[in-house]
Amino acid sequence: MSLDRSSLVPALKNMATRLRIDSIRSTSEAGSGHPTSCCSAADLVAALFFAEMRFDPKEPQHPGSDRFVLSKGHAAPVLYAAWAEAGAFDRAELLKLRQMGSDLEGHPTPRLPFVDVATGSLGQGICAGVGIALNARRIQSDYRTYCLLGDGESAEGSVWEAANVAAADKLDNLCAITDVNALGQSQPTMWQHDLDQFARRWRAFGWHAIVIDGHDMNAILDAYAEARATTGRPSMIIARTIKGKGVSFAEGKDGWHGRAFKKGEELDRAIAELEAQLVPVPSDVNLADRIPKPASRPRTAANPQPIAPPAYKTGEQVATREAYGTALAKLGEADPRVVALDADVKNSTFSDRFEKVAPDRFYQNFIAEQIMIGAAMGLAARGAIPFPSTFACFLSRAADFIRMAAISNVGIKMAGSHAGVSIGEDGPSQMALEDLAMCRAQPNITVLYPCDGVSAERLVALAAYHPGPVYIRTSRPKTPVIYSPDETFAVGGLKVLRESGADAATIVAAGVTVFEALKACDQLKAAGTSVRVIDLYSVAPVDRQALVAAGTATGGRIVTVEDHYAAGGIGDAVAEAVGDTAIRVHRVAVREIPHSGKPEELLDRYGISARHIVEAVRAVVGKAVGAPA
Amino acid sequence: MSLDRSSLVPALKNMATRLRIDSIRSTSEAGSGHPTSCCSAADLVAALFFAEMRFDPKEPQHPGSDRFVLSKGHAAPVLYAAWAEAGAFDRAELLKLRQMGSDLEGHPTPRLPFVDVATGSLGQGICAGVGIALNARRIQSDYRTYCLLGDGESAEGSVWEAANVAAADKLDNLCAITDVNALGQSQPTMWQHDLDQFARRWRAFGWHAIVIDGHDMNAILDAYAEARATTGRPSMIIARTIKGKGVSFAEGKDGWHGRAFKKGEELDRAIAELEAQLVPVPSDVNLADRIPKPASRPRTAANPQPIAPPAYKTGEQVATREAYGTALAKLGEADPRVVALDADVKNSTFSDRFEKVAPDRFYQNFIAEQIMIGAAMGLAARGAIPFPSTFACFLSRAADFIRMAAISNVGIKMAGSHAGVSIGEDGPSQMALEDLAMCRAQPNITVLYPCDGVSAERLVALAAYHPGPVYIRTSRPKTPVIYSPDETFAVGGLKVLRESGADAATIVAAGVTVFEALKACDQLKAAGTSVRVIDLYSVAPVDRQALVAAGTATGGRIVTVEDHYAAGGIGDAVAEAVGDTAIRVHRVAVREIPHSGKPEELLDRYGISARHIVEAVRAVVGKAVGAPA
Repeated sequence: MSLDRSSLVPALKNMATRLRIDSIRSTSEAGSGHPTSCCSAADLVAALFFAEMRFDPKEPQHPGSDRFVLSKGHAAPVLYAAWAEAGAFDRAELLKLRQMGSDLEGHPTPRLPFVDVATGSLGQGICAGVGIALNARRIQSDYRTYCLLGDGESAEGSVWEAANVAAADKLDNLCAITDVNALGQSQPTMWQHDLDQFARRWRAFGWHAIVIDGHDMNAILDAYAEARATTGRPSMIIARTIKGKGVSFAEGKDGWHGRAFKKGEELDRAIAELEAQLVPVPSDVNLADRIPKPASRPRTAANPQPIAPPAYKTGEQVATREAYGTALAKLGEADPRVVALDADVKNSTFSDRFEKVAPDRFYQNFIAEQIMIGAAMGLAARGAIPFPSTFACFLSRAADFIRMAAISNVGIKMAGSHAGVSIGEDGPSQMALEDLAMCRAQPNITVLYPCDGVSAERLVALAAYHPGPVYIRTSRPKTPVIYSPDETFAVGGLKVLRESGADAATIVAAGVTVFEALKACDQLKAAGTSVRVIDLYSVAPVDRQALVAAGTATGGRIVTVEDHYAAGGIGDAVAEAVGDTAIRVHRVAVREIPHSGKPEELLDRYGISARHIVEAVRAVVGKAVGAPA
Repeated sequence: MSLDRSSLVPALKNMATRLRIDSIRSTSEAGSGHPTSCCSAADLVAALFFAEMRFDPKEPQHPGSDRFVLSKGHAAPVLYAAWAEAGAFDRAELLKLRQMGSDLEGHPTPRLPFVDVATGSLGQGICAGVGIALNARRIQSDYRTYCLLGDGESAEGSVWEAANVAAADKLDNLCAITDVNALGQSQPTMWQHDLDQFARRWRAFGWHAIVIDGHDMNAILDAYAEARATTGRPSMIIARTIKGKGVSFAEGKDGWHGRAFKKGEELDRAIAELEAQLVPVPSDVNLADRIPKPASRPRTAANPQPIAPPAYKTGEQVATREAYGTALAKLGEADPRVVALDADVKNSTFSDRFEKVAPDRFYQNFIAEQIMIGAAMGLAARGAIPFPSTFACFLSRAADFIRMAAISNVGIKMAGSHAGVSIGEDGPSQMALEDLAMCRAQPNITVLYPCDGVSAERLVALAAYHPGPVYIRTSRPKTPVIYSPDETFAVGGLKVLRESGADAATIVAAGVTVFEALKACDQLKAAGTSVRVIDLYSVAPVDRQALVAAGTATGGRIVTVEDHYAAGGIGDAVAEAVGDTAIRVHRVAVREIPHSGKPEELLDRYGISARHIVEAVRAVVGKAVGAPA
C-alpha cells in the first residue's frame, strides 16, 4: 500500500538527508570525492529510488526492473548510499569507498551488480540510457529507464545526439533528470541557474521538459508522475538545485567541487547540520520495504537458430564489408538478441541487409557515432547483442565511448568498414589508419580482421557470441574468396596460407594486404625464395605460439604488412608476441598522411603493395645472411 | 562599384549553374564523388564567393581575408569550382579531381592554399569555424567566418558544442549556413524539409536563425546581409534546397548520394539541362573581378619575448601538470599568438594560470572536448599557437578531431593531464591509459612526456614552437625535480639518468615511471646488478640511435615501463626503434582495466612499480645469460 503524501514526503526528505550524510561520511573517510555534487542530487535520488522506481534491491539485474543510470558519475557516493538504503548491501560498506578492496569505486563501474555501464566520462550515461530504453521495446517490457545528468555535462555534444535519437524514437519510457546546481568543476556552468536555457533546448529537441525546484519533494514526485504519464516523447526534468545542499558553509559555494569534508571539525559540523534536519516520522514508515517489485519478468532467454554457412565459391569477388552485411542479416534471423545500429551509412557498411530482415531491431542514429556506440552499450548491458557499424575512421568519433565500453566490459560488436588507404579516391578523412591502435590499446577488446567473404561471415558470427567488446575491421574493395565455406576460425587464431620446409621468412598480413602478401610470395618464389604467408585474422588476441613457431621456422624473420599506420597495429602486435624470442619483426605499414588516388596506386604509393613486401623480404633475408647493408 | 540586384542576380544564377556543371563534370571524370551534394549548395556558394566575401583569390591566406570552411567536405568539387571561378587556379585543373597528381582531393585538405582545415568528417568544420572566428578577435581583424554545413551533419553532437560556445562567446563575426537538402547518404535525413526543426534548435542555442529558400538568389543575398548586420550573436542561415538541383532526373531523388553521373548519355543529359539554364547577362559583368579585397591587413608577426627558465630546486616536489600551467602562463606573457582552451578543468590542469595572465586569450568551452580541439584547429590554422588541455582520458572524446588535426597538420599543442593509474582513487574512467597509442598512431603528432617540473616547462616551450600537432602528457602526482633549471631538451631526445660501464640492462621509462625505474635501479645496484636508466621524454619521435646504443651496451636487454596499456605506448615505440637489431624489448605496462585505489597501491597492483621492474630486469638478465626459464 502506497503512503499518502503527508507521510511520504517527510520520510523521503529524511531519506535524502541520510543520503547526504552517507555521501559526506564516505568521501571524508576516503579523503576524496564529490560530496557536494551528491548533496544537490539527494532529493531527486531519494524520490526516484523510494517512491518511483520498481526494482528488487536483492536482484538488481531483474530483466523487468526499472533502470537507473547515473550519467553524472562523480556523484557515485549518493548512488551507493541509495542502494545501501534500499537493502542491496550493508551501509557499513559505504565507508570502504574508493579503496582497492571495495567495488564502490570513485566512479561507478559494472563491477557492482546494480550498475549497467561505467560512467564518469560525462555525457555518456544518457546515451546508454537510450539503449536501455530501446531494449525495453526489444524484450516487450514496461520497465522504465531513468538517467541523472549534471548541468555542466549538458555541454557535451553526445547529450544532444542522445536527445535527437530519443525523440526520433519516441522513447516515452525514458525519463532524464538534470541536476542544475549551477557550479562546474572550475567555475559556474555556462547557464548557471537560468533554467529556461535548458528547457528551451530540450523542448526544441522534441522532449517533454518539466522545470522544478529540485529540493521540493512534492514537485519532484509530481514531475516523475508527469513524466510517467507523458506519451510519445521522452521527458526531461530540469531541477534547480544547490550544490552542497544541506551544509550551510558549502551550499552554492564555488571551490567545493571534488573536495571531501575534512575529518574532524569540518566533517562533524556538516553531519551535525544534516542530522538536525531529520524530522520525526512514524516508526512503521520503512521506505525500503515499500519499493515496488518489477511488474513482470520478461523472457530473455535466447534460443538462437543455426546460421547457414557462407555460400561463396573460392575465387569469387566479394568485399568483406558486404559479407559483414550478409552475416549480420543471418544473425538477425537466427537470434532475437541481435540488433544493429547505424549512423546513416547502412548502404556502405551493408548493415541495410539486417534492416531488411529485422527492421524492428535496426536502430538508425543518423550521423552521430557517439549515441550509436553509447546506445549499443546500454543494449548490451541489458542482454542484447548489438552490432553498431560505420566507416572505421568514424568509430574514432566515439573513442571515449569505446574506452568506457572497455571499462564496462559490455558485449558491443563494433564493425568498421572502409579501413585503410585501399578505399581510394575519397581521401584521408575517410580512411581508418589508426582504428587497430585504438581498439588494441584496450586490454579487453577482441580485434578481428577478415580478408575474404568466408572469414568475414565466420568472424561476425564468432563476434556475436564471444564475451566482451569486439571490433571487426572490414574493407571496401572486393577481394577473392580464399577459404572454403566450411573453414573454421577462432578468436586468437591465424591461418598459414603458404608454407614450405625452406621458407626464408614469414609474411604476416591481414585484410587487403593478405592478397599483396600472396602476390609477393609468388614473385619471390618465381625468383627462388620461398616464404611463409600468414593471415592474422585475429589481431587481438594473437596466436603467439603459432607466430613464434613460424618465425622460428623461417630464420627468425617476420615481415608484417598492414593497411594501417605503423604504430599500434599488426606490426606492434606481432612484435610484442615474439618479443621474448630472437625473432626480428620488420614492419611494412603506412607512414605518412595519404592522398586521394586509386586504391592500387595508394597501396603502392604508401608502401604496402606486393612490390614493397618483396623488397622488405629481400632486405631482411639479405641482412640476416650477412649481405651488405 | 557593386552591381545592382537586377544585374547581380542573373549573373550569380549563372555562376551557380557553372559551379554545378563543373562539379558534375569533375566527378564524372573522376568516376566518383558527390555531385548532387554540390548542386544543392551551388546557389549558396555562388552568392557567398561572388557577392558577400572579401578575399583575394591570388592570396588565399591573406590575414584579413574572410574565411570559408566547407564543413560538408564531401561537396569539395563545388568548393574547388568556386575558387577556380574566382581565379585562384585554372578551371582545367578541376578535371584532375581525386587523382594522385592533384591536390583537388576527394575531401578538402590544407594541401590546397585556400583550405584552412581538412573536412570530410562531418560536424568538425563548424568547430574549426568557431576557432577561426575567435582568431579574428585575437588579431583585431574584421574578417568574417562563413561555414557551410549539411543537414545530415547537424546530428553530430559536435555541431551543438560549437553552437553553445559560439553563442556564449557572442561570435557575431560567424555566419553558418545549413544546406537542407533533406537526403542523407542512405535515407532521408532525420528532419527532412521540416526547417522549423533546425530553426528552433539554433534559436534555442542562442543563434540568430534565418530560414530561406536556398535556391532563391535574392533571399540568399538578403540572408547574408541580415547575418552581417546581426550583432551579439552568430547567425545560422537555414536554406531549403534540393539535392541534385538543376538536373531533373536527379533532383530530390534518393539513391543519388555519392554517385557520379556516368560519362556518356547520363552526363551529357545533365550538362545539357544545366547549360539550358544559363541566361544572357551583359558582357561586362565579371563577378570574379568584382570580389572585394580584404578591408585591412592585420599585423600578425610575432615578436615573442624570452621566457624565464624553470625556477625549481632539485628535489623539490612539483606535479608536471602544475609545471605545465606555469610554463603556459609564461608563454602567454611572452607571445601574443599563444592561446589556451579549457573544458572546465582549468584548476586541475593548471591552465587557470594562463587565464590569469591572458584572460582575453583564454577560451572556456565548458565540458565539451570536441569544440575545444576543433576551435584549436581553427585558431592554429590562422596563426595562433593554441594549447587545449584537459584530463588526458577526455582528449579521447576528440579522437576524431585529433585525427583530422593530423591530416590538417595544424599546430595544436594538446596537453593531457592525469595520465595513468597514478591518478589513484577516481578510478578507471578518469585514467588515460591509451592516450599515447592514440597520438603515436598519427604519423605527424609529436608526443612529449615530462617526468619533472623542469622538463615539463622546457617541453611546453618546445611544443609551442615545434611545427605541427604536439601532445604533452602530464601527471597528477607531485614528483621530485631531477633536472637542473638550465638542462636542455629536444624533440626526439632522451636523457640517460643512470649509466655505468657494466650495465646489465637498460630501463626505459617516462613520466611517473622514471621514479620507479630509479628506485629499481637503486635496489638492483644494492643487490649487485647495475642498470642503465633512460627518461624517454620524447615518445614520438624517439631517439633511435641512443636507444640502440644503450640496448647494445647493456647486453641487448631493454625493459620498458609505462603508466599506460601495453599496446601502442612506450614499449611499442622502443621495440620498433630497435627492431632492426638483436636487442630484445620486455614491456612492463598496465594489462587490465584498473580499479580505484591509492596511487602507490595501483602502480604496484597493475605491475609498473619498482618491484616489478626489478623482477623484469632479473628475468631478462637471467634469461639472457642462460638461466633456466
